[in-house]
Amino acid sequence: MPHFIVEYTDNIKDEAKLEKLFEEIHKVLIARDTVFPIGGLRSRAIELKDYRVADGAEDDAFVHAVLKIGAGRSEEIKKEVCEALFEVMKEHFSLIMAKRYLALSMELIEFSKAGTYKQNNIHARFKKK
Amino acid sequence: MPHFIVEYTDNIKDEAKLEKLFEEIHKVLIARDTVFPIGGLRSRAIELKDYRVADGAEDDAFVHAVLKIGAGRSEEIKKEVCEALFEVMKEHFSLIMAKRYLALSMELIEFSKAGTYKQNNIHARFKKK
Amino acid sequence: MPHFIVEYTDNIKDEAKLEKLFEEIHKVLIARDTVFPIGGLRSRAIELKDYRVADGAEDDAFVHAVLKIGAGRSEEIKKEVCEALFEVMKEHFSLIMAKRYLALSMELIEFSKAGTYKQNNIHARFKKK
Repeated sequence: MPHFIVEYTDNIKDEAKLEKLFEEIHKVLIARDTVFPIGGLRSRAIELKDYRVADGAEDDAFVHAVLKIGAGRSEEIKKEVCEALFEVMKEHFSLIMAKRYLALSMELIEFSKAGTYKQNNIHARFKKK
Repeated sequence: MPHFIVEYTDNIKDEAKLEKLFEEIHKVLIARDTVFPIGGLRSRAIELKDYRVADGAEDDAFVHAVLKIGAGRSEEIKKEVCEALFEVMKEHFSLIMAKRYLALSMELIEFSKAGTYKQNNIHARFKKK
Repeated sequence: MPHFIVEYTDNIKDEAKLEKLFEEIHKVLIARDTVFPIGGLRSRAIELKDYRVADGAEDDAFVHAVLKIGAGRSEEIKKEVCEALFEVMKEHFSLIMAKRYLALSMELIEFSKAGTYKQNNIHARFKKK
């Protein structure tokens, strides 16, 4: 963890530049690697092909992101990192927002401590350094 | 918000008529637009290609929907709208249900107030009117 | 219910053997069918084509699973079944884990009792027996 999951409508597929978005998102999180260990960062996108927005009258687009983190961080830390991540999203999609209907949203979800299981050999790459 | 997210197995792809389903779902929500602003409605479907149902012995199908709304609505409102939406789902899939194994389900999830971020130029379309 | 949802990166697509994974997962759950009725079991996988892991420097893979169950089971039962399921995941992906960077994770989510709706003609197949 954390996990960053983006759903996006395919009507902005060519402009969405997800690789760049994820790079920027990871920069924000890696800058806070005492809180969020690098080896646990995982971003992914799900392309939406069937969708309907609002009244269905326009070619609306949307991007919805979920940040999933383990429970236990302070409210201050969660607020600070979420605001930084959403700034990245707004900046990243600002050109698209300027020229078409677009809804951006992001929600924070905390994994419960009780029901989380992990096995991960990526962490070792960063401990070795 | 709200968000309506449908997962469906691809063995009912040709009959699922998602566009019609979303239209009906949005009608229910738009009829309650003092509670759920039109500009925030977003439905989408995710087609499932790899799945296993029950004992795996039959060509079972399923449709699972999640309604995500912002926290803060009363229990009465949530119950009323969920029942109306699930009625739409049952009606929409009734012909498929009548002729094959099918599991329909829907769950309500509330976004936490603390960790929700939004930027949306679709709302303006409805305020202008 | 329960629902078992797997996200996996497409760089392990050929080796992931999801059909076998789901069969093993269902075996664990069917062995506990007094707690989890067979007719409600539904597993599915979502293939991830756009993702970034950690620093993005390696061809990292990940598999993230969510087990969604209805609320109301005891902590002991939840812990026992989650551990059994995650053992299946670790065993299933052990060969891949041994030869490349891979992060496995699983989380438990409980449906709220209030907002859950179901219609399912698969259960009848098992009641008849």
